[in-house]
Amino acid sequence: MYLEKPLIGWGVGRNWPVRYNVSFGILWMTTTLTGLNCVTCGRRFGPDGPWMTCPDCGPDDGILDVQYDLDAVRAGWKAAPLADRPLTHWRYRELLPLEPGSVRDDWRVGWTPVIDASRLAKELGLKQLLLKDEGRNPTASFKDRASSVGVAHALQLNAKTIACASTGNAATSLAGHAALAGMPCVIFVPHTAPEPKLAQLLVFGATVIAVQGSYDQAYQLCSQACEKFGWYNRNCAINPVLVEGKKTGGLEVAEQSASFGGVPDWVAVSVGDGCTIAGVWKGLSEMHQLGVIDRLPRLLGVQAKGVAPIAYALEHGSMPDEVQDGGTVADSINVAVPRNWRKAVNALKEAHGVVVSVDDNQILDAMRTSGRHGVYAEPAAAAALAGVTSAVANGIISGGTGGDRVLAMVTGSGLKDTRAAIQAGGEPIKIEPDLDTLASAIQDRGVIDGAG
Amino acid sequence: MYLEKPLIGWGVGRNWPVRYNVSFGILWMTTTLTGLNCVTCGRRFGPDGPWMTCPDCGPDDGILDVQYDLDAVRAGWKAAPLADRPLTHWRYRELLPLEPGSVRDDWRVGWTPVIDASRLAKELGLKQLLLKDEGRNPTASFKDRASSVGVAHALQLNAKTIACASTGNAATSLAGHAALAGMPCVIFVPHTAPEPKLAQLLVFGATVIAVQGSYDQAYQLCSQACEKFGWYNRNCAINPVLVEGKKTGGLEVAEQSASFGGVPDWVAVSVGDGCTIAGVWKGLSEMHQLGVIDRLPRLLGVQAKGVAPIAYALEHGSMPDEVQDGGTVADSINVAVPRNWRKAVNALKEAHGVVVSVDDNQILDAMRTSGRHGVYAEPAAAAALAGVTSAVANGIISGGTGGDRVLAMVTGSGLKDTRAAIQAGGEPIKIEPDLDTLASAIQDRGVIDGAG
Repeated sequence: MYLEKPLIGWGVGRNWPVRYNVSFGILWMTTTLTGLNCVTCGRRFGPDGPWMTCPDCGPDDGILDVQYDLDAVRAGWKAAPLADRPLTHWRYRELLPLEPGSVRDDWRVGWTPVIDASRLAKELGLKQLLLKDEGRNPTASFKDRASSVGVAHALQLNAKTIACASTGNAATSLAGHAALAGMPCVIFVPHTAPEPKLAQLLVFGATVIAVQGSYDQAYQLCSQACEKFGWYNRNCAINPVLVEGKKTGGLEVAEQSASFGGVPDWVAVSVGDGCTIAGVWKGLSEMHQLGVIDRLPRLLGVQAKGVAPIAYALEHGSMPDEVQDGGTVADSINVAVPRNWRKAVNALKEAHGVVVSVDDNQILDAMRTSGRHGVYAEPAAAAALAGVTSAVANGIISGGTGGDRVLAMVTGSGLKDTRAAIQAGGEPIKIEPDLDTLASAIQDRGVIDGAG
Repeated sequence: MYLEKPLIGWGVGRNWPVRYNVSFGILWMTTTLTGLNCVTCGRRFGPDGPWMTCPDCGPDDGILDVQYDLDAVRAGWKAAPLADRPLTHWRYRELLPLEPGSVRDDWRVGWTPVIDASRLAKELGLKQLLLKDEGRNPTASFKDRASSVGVAHALQLNAKTIACASTGNAATSLAGHAALAGMPCVIFVPHTAPEPKLAQLLVFGATVIAVQGSYDQAYQLCSQACEKFGWYNRNCAINPVLVEGKKTGGLEVAEQSASFGGVPDWVAVSVGDGCTIAGVWKGLSEMHQLGVIDRLPRLLGVQAKGVAPIAYALEHGSMPDEVQDGGTVADSINVAVPRNWRKAVNALKEAHGVVVSVDDNQILDAMRTSGRHGVYAEPAAAAALAGVTSAVANGIISGGTGGDRVLAMVTGSGLKDTRAAIQAGGEPIKIEPDLDTLASAIQDRGVIDGAG
């Protein structure tokens, strides 16, 4: 199905707002992929891969990083300016390891709105606060960036089936994009996974395997099955392609910030396994190297207090000896043993970054705060805002009108986690159906303009 | 907050993909509003209103319809082509009763994706099936169109507070847009409203009044409060502005269909109180009068079997004597006494329309079907697809490669109704963590390519 439309691009600059669905796939404008580097031993590989981990360093240490020809990117953007391209993350096709034809032109991923939360900035004493609402992606989270690129890459490699082990946003976004592409998808979950999350996967038509065991056993079975059956493995920890999808978040921040007074001083991202913050940083760095932005922001990594191994690693250069497993309401960053901590720590160091940790009350507070300004965030997404609040209070971020400008990545929609929303929401005002009762019940709410 | 940015528009055609956030509010291009007509007595009112119901015909019958100067619209679209405008429903500003400055330029409502579900079309024996995914709106439903226009209109009238009685998508979208605008919002709900729906309203910062009484009592108290306290009443049944928001769904169908072989033969919409289908029809009709499309589609209205008063009204010209209240899993169209049945029936008649009714099993089936093709639909949204399936089976819609082309409005995201998704989703495959067990458990799933 993904190849059924003619891949045409001419006349696109003027017509695509009407014909956006045929605007992808300009054949003379494609990836500038040069190959992959091992981040541990530095070994270089050509464009043919391997497309998982470095064979010399093994699956734990041999994380590969995808490389491009930035001169060719510059030339491509000069020939066909970004300003004339579709408002999706596919606009950055020179910086993705994909060939035309791998991508369905109606996968509208990315180019999520940036909301200038000026009232909230004032409340927090910030010069500027921007919220990038990743909940507007197809399955309502940042992970759609990675999964869409993963599915496209799987198609390119002629994989017949794609798989992952997860119950969170990674799984949902994979199931959704596999369904769009018409590609069979297998999701491995521990048998304890909550029903609402399973429901969405099943409605998307994924084959869901509930493993009678731990998450680690589900993960292992997934890896074995991928190897044995030739399935494409959508796992950020070992698959370098997924970070390429995530980096589009950073590419967009760089491009969109031109509308808001230039590059922010800080980009705040909540941190679980470390892939997202590393991806965002890669995107920002590439835009800096390409000259789209003239300086780089600092990174504010935000972890949950009970599960903050990357905060420890940034300080000590290693994982903590004892696994911190205090739990958090923010499911999506509840990662006690992050696989990509090195990538995250490297990004944070390069970015003169800071990691702050916030507790569940701060996270629920931030859900209410962003909601009151029109952005419904899941707990892990609200954590980024909670981190900003905490960093202002601690003097890490400079407040005041002469202070710092901040962008927070709101990585997923509140619709994803009803239970947390109930905790954050509080209680309605219960009254009898009577106007006078109403008037006295709400008199301190500022909605009765002296008219009550 | 909504007025804080300069309203500039020059140079917008080329630059807005980068600077979309300042692209709204071209001062020389504004509404072409001429006034309102009473749909019952035909009395005409000027642009100053009244902006609720006709004083001669009263709140039950005196529904007003907003009128525009279509010659001025044509001139405006020639001067500043639609193709150069932002990809939101604000692109149709000449056809909305709003003045520049009422709208926040970062309210990204509308221009939702149209997905060419060609595999599904083949399954259903249809020439073409398009799914318009309204779940991609800011609070994940079609109702964002109406609420965003309602909030903008309230700002324009200098209202200080906006209110409605609902627990569904109308309330959520109102709370979300009021929060974006920084406008206080009061939502009246019966005290029996389910907690997850209240949670979202409360997180958005709405004042939620849980009335110890029925929905009707909540509705009455809301109306009284709006009158007494001067609040803006966001209620589709009496407020003519909201249909103007809903019609943008029809405007978009007309414009976007150019990319898919022209106007579809049928547009399928699920029907509750009748406002949505009437709004979509108004948009299509205006685009036909403006010459953007050269013919009109037929409408397929879809009701739930237990609650189908508009199916009855289309046949008999009146509401049924006895209230049908059989209930349905499709919450958003569970309306036993629709206020706007006349508007819906008029639209259906003009459109040579047909109403079909589907039961809960058909609706849950359609949730799974659209999910398997990458669109996660709430039950009322899936109902439109269930109706299409039923209409093909009954010969209302012509199947086959020489048959009809159909667009179904998918009016809300499946994330809105986890309980229904659990009903629709089915069960995962439970196994021990063992590769051979896995292989035999999934051998009939088409994911083991003879390699097992």
